[in-house]
Amino acid sequence: MKRTSRDIRTANRYEVLRHVIAESPAVSRQHLASATGLSLATVATLVGELLHLGAITEVGYEDSDGGRPRGLVAVNAQGGALIGVDVAETYIHVEVFDLSLTVLARADEELRPERPGEREPRQVIARIAAAVRAVVEAAAIPDDRVLGVGVSMPGQVDREGGVSVFAPNWDWHDVPVLDLLAEHLPYPLHLDNPLRACTVAELWFGAARGREHAVVVNLGTGVGAGLALGGTLHRGASNSAGEWGHTTLVLDGRVCHCGAHGCVESYVGAPGIMQNLRELSPGSPLLHPDDQTATVEALGRALADGDPVAVKTVRDTARYLGAGLADLVNLLNPEVIVLSSWVAAGLGEPLLTEVRAAVAGRALRRPLASTEIVLSPIPTNPVSLGAATFALEGWLASTGRKSRTNTSTTAAAMIRSTPS
Amino acid sequence: MKRTSRDIRTANRYEVLRHVIAESPAVSRQHLASATGLSLATVATLVGELLHLGAITEVGYEDSDGGRPRGLVAVNAQGGALIGVDVAETYIHVEVFDLSLTVLARADEELRPERPGEREPRQVIARIAAAVRAVVEAAAIPDDRVLGVGVSMPGQVDREGGVSVFAPNWDWHDVPVLDLLAEHLPYPLHLDNPLRACTVAELWFGAARGREHAVVVNLGTGVGAGLALGGTLHRGASNSAGEWGHTTLVLDGRVCHCGAHGCVESYVGAPGIMQNLRELSPGSPLLHPDDQTATVEALGRALADGDPVAVKTVRDTARYLGAGLADLVNLLNPEVIVLSSWVAAGLGEPLLTEVRAAVAGRALRRPLASTEIVLSPIPTNPVSLGAATFALEGWLASTGRKSRTNTSTTAAAMIRSTPS
Ligand SMILES: [Zn+2]
Ligand SMILES: [Zn+2]
Repeated sequence: MKRTSRDIRTANRYEVLRHVIAESPAVSRQHLASATGLSLATVATLVGELLHLGAITEVGYEDSDGGRPRGLVAVNAQGGALIGVDVAETYIHVEVFDLSLTVLARADEELRPERPGEREPRQVIARIAAAVRAVVEAAAIPDDRVLGVGVSMPGQVDREGGVSVFAPNWDWHDVPVLDLLAEHLPYPLHLDNPLRACTVAELWFGAARGREHAVVVNLGTGVGAGLALGGTLHRGASNSAGEWGHTTLVLDGRVCHCGAHGCVESYVGAPGIMQNLRELSPGSPLLHPDDQTATVEALGRALADGDPVAVKTVRDTARYLGAGLADLVNLLNPEVIVLSSWVAAGLGEPLLTEVRAAVAGRALRRPLASTEIVLSPIPTNPVSLGAATFALEGWLASTGRKSRTNTSTTAAAMIRSTPS
Repeated sequence: MKRTSRDIRTANRYEVLRHVIAESPAVSRQHLASATGLSLATVATLVGELLHLGAITEVGYEDSDGGRPRGLVAVNAQGGALIGVDVAETYIHVEVFDLSLTVLARADEELRPERPGEREPRQVIARIAAAVRAVVEAAAIPDDRVLGVGVSMPGQVDREGGVSVFAPNWDWHDVPVLDLLAEHLPYPLHLDNPLRACTVAELWFGAARGREHAVVVNLGTGVGAGLALGGTLHRGASNSAGEWGHTTLVLDGRVCHCGAHGCVESYVGAPGIMQNLRELSPGSPLLHPDDQTATVEALGRALADGDPVAVKTVRDTARYLGAGLADLVNLLNPEVIVLSSWVAAGLGEPLLTEVRAAVAGRALRRPLASTEIVLSPIPTNPVSLGAATFALEGWLASTGRKSRTNTSTTAAAMIRSTPS
């Protein structure tokens, strides 16, 4: 078993900071204790550590019915900067955040993977580094105030080694992403994939916050299920848990690009939805061959007009998706399932309504009764937010390490830049 | 979030005792610290608590290369008795264990649910109480040395309330099992279901011991997947996680008794296996209509003789089972999947070999590489062992509560009875 006292202390530190962020503008230790279920003594210790790190700050007192006034703490937005990098097949999106996770600056780079040079590892890494440099400069942040950079890359990731084990879109194998990036950037670096980034974003700032067991279902070109169990991300034995997209829904069904048949992804990923539409109405004007984004957008618009083909396509998709989600309900008995990513956003409430009905018709009564299904409430890019959160977690996990500089002089400089 | 410091202390206490049991006959605090990843100071505190409870005992010293001799501890087998009750549709099986989980005595009662009186709650409860009384008497254990009774009942269980929410075989709804049982028995009582009992048994004493993430797949009349994630049982929001038997394998496939179509259980539960045999060879002499046990036993014997129908039936079953297990590998990325219960035992190695091949052909490479699939190594009834373990966990969780009597005088009396 690998859960050490140190892991537990780190998890509790996350938990307390999550609550401090949630209870903005200010919260007492007493309230944190009742919100987290931790003892007041434990909370006081954790608050002391977070104050020492500069993650939070004392912000005054509240009256407590005749008793001693209670000290209040709040996030120390100026305590440092966190950078989140969302690397996808066709773009690099970078955001720099303050410690309240407000965006201070953004940068975008386009990638054209059809040009072989542009998917070459050193080339991609140099573009990432340049984009990071650009946001640090735009937000006028001194290097020593950057607490860390989180990078999300598609595919299989060896998080501890900082290696992209396999990125199918670019045909990368065992690329030492963080070692290469460290040649350009002097900051603490963290690597993981978009599914886990979205899950951590929901856990800290979204619909999974305060829930003991949550599943974050990413609906995009690929699909996956990030598992936030017992309040932490379940990574599995080799950091590859969550491959719900490649669980069987239809034995001997559609061929999936993973090589197997009948995977969930081949019915509810964007190409699967295109196939559902094609099977229903091969000549539909909603179908943009070779353009998933345009097709999902067209479906979304047509749904709003009550277009029968769009409605039926979403219903067919919801039948598949509902069966797949019912599997998650029955197996994991979560409190909430969060639908995230661009397909979920594009089909929105109409998809949600159909999916809820499909799950209700399929899941067992008892686990169903305790599960909500919701759309992600995170208004910005959850992947870069989640990637920045990996940097935040990495910083918080560095137990006992002192804040590297005195924040008082650099903090003012840091917030000069305006959020874009 | 509900994980309090107290929960963590309890989990660590479980973890240390599990290692003390595993490292029989004796183990040092230093070894426990390196085995658990906890600090030596934490281990010393936990060992102190376990000594105080009477769960373990000091048993001497080992030399440590020139250093101070290290104190050794071992399980205090005579520290008390634990009772495990496996209630199934047609029988009640009760075992009493000492603290090293050695069986001291057993009792069996037959139930005939076809007689309406014999499935009436008060009647069943009275039979359970009588069987418990019988083993306590057979093992000559004074009442105050019984640390607890764990009861496993099929169906949906409200563990905290001690209520059988729904037992399909007997058509029980919201039966307050523990309240009724408390009218007969003066011991601490615990209730849960067979899937979770088997999982906890594997976690403490079987193939999941020392693994961070394990799945215990029960193959019987019904099927389920007990999830031991992060070293503890994942119960879900309403204690109903693990209903893998009712996840979809074949959309619109066979009708399942849960009302849905194409559930895993309808292909790999004992009745599903009979159906696989029937589809292959309707008149096979291996098929005992209306007798699952006889059919699985006949298949097991025929496999040993290389009977082609039996071999093909197991291969067909393994194709379904392999797809379902590959789903667990891809979604959860466990270190080990343990095949448990009577169907797994009955079809044994031939089933295991076929299943491993089927999973390898279906799961993703990265999670597959970190997963072993094994048969349960527990030689006795894992359900009563697991039920007794619930009683052990309940006793250990009673933090700070003192051992109720001085054990020195009663211990000798307790072990008078010989294991049966
Ligand atoms: Zn697939
Ligand atoms: Zn079913």
